[in-house]
Amino acid sequence: MTVNDGFQEHFTPRLKRFESNLERALPRADEAPTSLHQAMRYAVLGGGKRIRPLLVYSAAEALSLEDTRVDALAIAVEMIHAYSLVHDDLPAMDDDDLRRGQPTCHVAFDEATAILAGDALQALAFEVLSSDRGLTGSAAARLRMVRGLAAACGSRGMAGGQAHDLEAVGCRLDREALETMHRMKTGALIRYCVVAPAWLCEIDGARRSSLHRFGSLVGLAFQIHDDILDETGDAVETGKPRDSDRDRNKPTFTSTLGLETSRELARDLSEQALGCLREFGPQSESLARLARFAVDRRG
Amino acid sequence: MTVNDGFQEHFTPRLKRFESNLERALPRADEAPTSLHQAMRYAVLGGGKRIRPLLVYSAAEALSLEDTRVDALAIAVEMIHAYSLVHDDLPAMDDDDLRRGQPTCHVAFDEATAILAGDALQALAFEVLSSDRGLTGSAAARLRMVRGLAAACGSRGMAGGQAHDLEAVGCRLDREALETMHRMKTGALIRYCVVAPAWLCEIDGARRSSLHRFGSLVGLAFQIHDDILDETGDAVETGKPRDSDRDRNKPTFTSTLGLETSRELARDLSEQALGCLREFGPQSESLARLARFAVDRRG
Repeated sequence: MTVNDGFQEHFTPRLKRFESNLERALPRADEAPTSLHQAMRYAVLGGGKRIRPLLVYSAAEALSLEDTRVDALAIAVEMIHAYSLVHDDLPAMDDDDLRRGQPTCHVAFDEATAILAGDALQALAFEVLSSDRGLTGSAAARLRMVRGLAAACGSRGMAGGQAHDLEAVGCRLDREALETMHRMKTGALIRYCVVAPAWLCEIDGARRSSLHRFGSLVGLAFQIHDDILDETGDAVETGKPRDSDRDRNKPTFTSTLGLETSRELARDLSEQALGCLREFGPQSESLARLARFAVDRRG
Repeated sequence: MTVNDGFQEHFTPRLKRFESNLERALPRADEAPTSLHQAMRYAVLGGGKRIRPLLVYSAAEALSLEDTRVDALAIAVEMIHAYSLVHDDLPAMDDDDLRRGQPTCHVAFDEATAILAGDALQALAFEVLSSDRGLTGSAAARLRMVRGLAAACGSRGMAGGQAHDLEAVGCRLDREALETMHRMKTGALIRYCVVAPAWLCEIDGARRSSLHRFGSLVGLAFQIHDDILDETGDAVETGKPRDSDRDRNKPTFTSTLGLETSRELARDLSEQALGCLREFGPQSESLARLARFAVDRRG
């Protein structure tokens, strides 16, 4: 029995609400241009663990914000994440045919449609985040959230991290370079998920800093555990073939640090992340569950 | 001598300021990841007529807004336009090797970098638009401008128009379908350029509606004249081979309506656009120049 028993049950009601909101925020499949709208829906509604929305809701909970106040934020971050996967999977990038055991977007549709679906999902994320529905807060706070999302997914965040990732194929990176890449590629958006609710309610700097640090640590822990699963995991549970990154000659934490050191580092980061939650008290239970899940999940 | 003599001279000081602002809004070429940042700069700083920024400044002038109040808006729309060209030129889309007589972004760099440069430029546009520099106005007005930009470039705007465009290859479209496609593909962003300054200064609905109508008419006039130039223009002045759309088997206004009817339609739209400016008086001179330029330019 792990400390994270009941993880699914804990988040199920929230996830159910989220999936229904997410579906309604997307254009209908029969709205023209239909192939584009179907591809957008395919990319977003094809499952996934919804870690980023759960981080949003859990950070909101730690700040005593009701779920309904961050619905638009949760939708926006998942749309950004989905668009990034569609583009990362493209033939010119990672050239992946399968994602979560299903054909990737450019395989199910075509390359042009996949590129446009990603583009349109990025735009839709900003539209949702700046709309009048599903977020309450001052206009100034909401503008700050828009700016933060843009920074998290731009060339100094997610897109820049993917560029580093492509440059690193076939290279040996040291731990610092590897961490820099992942702090940009996946870390920036994960940090944003936990910091944005703090901007929304305009809380003081100390608690916002703790959330920022929590996001950094958990983001890295997720990535290292991903690399561990890539090497040791079950293809059915992870949804991709084992060793896929190693086959692609990408530097990983396990190839750089070895499996055991990687495991220790991930656990250590998760523990440090839990330490950031002290000042939030029992309201941070959901965040704590996510910090543990980062390093004890099997897929 | 045309009515638009002195077009270049009229806008030169503004364009000079704009180019310098635009350059400074981009990440430096030596900032890591360098290939991505170089590609972003290549895509944005490679020239172009800067019609969208000029529409922004000209609409601001009609509303008695100083140029400095819309600098960020002008930069944001040009970044969106540049990103759309980079993605449209990709092998999976229009597969163009040349743009303005220079190698397209994916030729000068590589496909993955071009995809990421487009992605990062879209994000940067939203970052610039929501930043504290270069725009003054209430936070609520600025949030409205963010929402408008997102809608203009999403699946119901620019990205959706490009999807219609790709679907239309090899098809015969009637005038209505062709207009719908272009109202989305290029029209939505052009309309946004003239309407967004009205949101910024929160002016009344009537003048905003006139600007909206002006933007619709001018956007379509630009597109029809593009099709005319594509069939009749000089490759040196237009920067692309003559008949490139026809070669690609794309429906155009000239193939649908014939050359003479297209010319009459473009002139008629430009005249109608000029009619929308009456209530703005002499302050709308710059917008009027752009409406004329739409249909009398040679490239």
